Amino acid sequence: MDRLIEAIEDKQNPSVVGLDPTDKLVPAPVMDAYAVEAEEQVESDDNLAATAAAAAYFEFNRAIIDAVYDIVPAVKPQIAMYEALGPAGIDCYTMTCEYAQSRGLYVIGDVKRGDIGSTAAAYAHHLTGFQGDDVWFEDAVTVNPYLGSDGIEPFMEAAGQADRDMFILVRTSNPSSSQIQELELADGGRVYEHVADLVEDWGKDSIGRFGYSRAGAVVGATHPKEGAALRERMPHTFFLVPGYGAQGGTAQSVAGMFDHNGSGAIVNSSRGIIGAWRNDEQYSDSLEPESALELVAVNARAAAADMRDQLRVALA
Amino acid sequence: MDRLIEAIEDKQNPSVVGLDPTDKLVPAPVMDAYAVEAEEQVESDDNLAATAAAAAYFEFNRAIIDAVYDIVPAVKPQIAMYEALGPAGIDCYTMTCEYAQSRGLYVIGDVKRGDIGSTAAAYAHHLTGFQGDDVWFEDAVTVNPYLGSDGIEPFMEAAGQADRDMFILVRTSNPSSSQIQELELADGGRVYEHVADLVEDWGKDSIGRFGYSRAGAVVGATHPKEGAALRERMPHTFFLVPGYGAQGGTAQSVAGMFDHNGSGAIVNSSRGIIGAWRNDEQYSDSLEPESALELVAVNARAAAADMRDQLRVALA
Repeated sequence: MDRLIEAIEDKQNPSVVGLDPTDKLVPAPVMDAYAVEAEEQVESDDNLAATAAAAAYFEFNRAIIDAVYDIVPAVKPQIAMYEALGPAGIDCYTMTCEYAQSRGLYVIGDVKRGDIGSTAAAYAHHLTGFQGDDVWFEDAVTVNPYLGSDGIEPFMEAAGQADRDMFILVRTSNPSSSQIQELELADGGRVYEHVADLVEDWGKDSIGRFGYSRAGAVVGATHPKEGAALRERMPHTFFLVPGYGAQGGTAQSVAGMFDHNGSGAIVNSSRGIIGAWRNDEQYSDSLEPESALELVAVNARAAAADMRDQLRVALA
Repeated sequence: MDRLIEAIEDKQNPSVVGLDPTDKLVPAPVMDAYAVEAEEQVESDDNLAATAAAAAYFEFNRAIIDAVYDIVPAVKPQIAMYEALGPAGIDCYTMTCEYAQSRGLYVIGDVKRGDIGSTAAAYAHHLTGFQGDDVWFEDAVTVNPYLGSDGIEPFMEAAGQADRDMFILVRTSNPSSSQIQELELADGGRVYEHVADLVEDWGKDSIGRFGYSRAGAVVGATHPKEGAALRERMPHTFFLVPGYGAQGGTAQSVAGMFDHNGSGAIVNSSRGIIGAWRNDEQYSDSLEPESALELVAVNARAAAADMRDQLRVALA
């Protein structure tokens, strides 16, 4: 986790921008421009809509990355948004990751993979690449713990080998996360607390020079009390905190997830930053695509700076 | 689940072939042939190895599909094996799914996705496609329940809309699955039993004409007793049973996961079928690629027929 922590210190900003484009978050003039271009250029009609959307998403992401790369340490593309487009979306995802890395950003691939043994080892190529070539351009990935350590160990090995990291789901930000994660166990704890102990244990041989292991945890901003308790319970586990902004989390609600040095966590905001342009009165659907992207960029930068400043105040 | 059950009845065979290629399961002459071809044809050196492997995997899959399509109802490609190659692997995955569907096979995409709200809705495009185009060519996908119903409902909606299905992880086949799934709850049950009840409930509005809902369950062949108990506990839930063969499951150990009519489950075998050629004495690394693929095909068909016959005996 050292590279991420260094990047956070360097920017003095423990926040990450979620690159989760949808056809509502990318301005209509940008979507439309690529729809026209695709129709002119693509030979067959197969997946015309997906190809056009993927091209629009990439330009949107690039505008945001260019706007924030010098004030945020990391980005977190959510691969589901890209998978929605099929293979064209996957190309856009890896291009986005590669471009973000080229701008010096630490890339957290929010892929939530989880499988067993040889299958988990195959997924771990997200971190190690294939036969010497990087194929995903991610510095860390998110992982689901439901299958136990068989699903985690191959990622831990890959992380060590490639100097990369992982974040394991412990307590997610959504309402129904309680259905399984909060179940009370016979020994008195909750399922997510048991998972927390497993994560702390899985990471123990990979603790870096800031005291945090390569096995991070996903802990939703919407659970401030549990988050603060988990901070105590998992002293060597760095937190990725989703749920800020649109989902209801605030700088105050996440403050308890940081350690006494103001480190130990990175907070994600997606819609609050990449969709900030939607509150800009200068926007209209009749803008040129370039002007729309300019508004996206200006508003994303302002929102990212605002989030950084709010976190600085809350952690001061 | 009606389409899958019909396909099983049609072939009188409740088994599914796992299409999980790796560089050890694809014969060396096939891997080598595409490595040479890629070197000659691909313009840049970027991802040469991955592009070649993806091409070899596709030819391997096609040979297996052609060899078994008339005796098995379904195939289950494990997307991790393809993600290991990056975007080139994803292209191979969707081409494999599309080819299998063109041969009349029901395709279970073993993707184990799981996320929340709008993100789960994005993943659900695996089932619905994008703006009218199918982009993944899957008839069902596997899903991880750790995030609760927020992660399931968008898939259920998509499944209904597209006449497709899903299989939710309940009790996986791997040894460490017990670390979370078998935790004892304060109310006396186990985590996986609670998940089983959730799955039965999630499916209840989608029960088809054979009495099974669109929300299936993944129940590992390595847990015969729990599997039989789950069969009683989940009367409207169809089971996808991995872990047969290489992982230790037998026709006897899965028999209890079927209902009294011999329906209610489909059993997966991967290495036992697609790697059966490795026990053929006629194989050698000096074979021509076409001859190696012919051996793959002959042995896969024999192994698939053998598995079918063993299941028929066990269920008689």
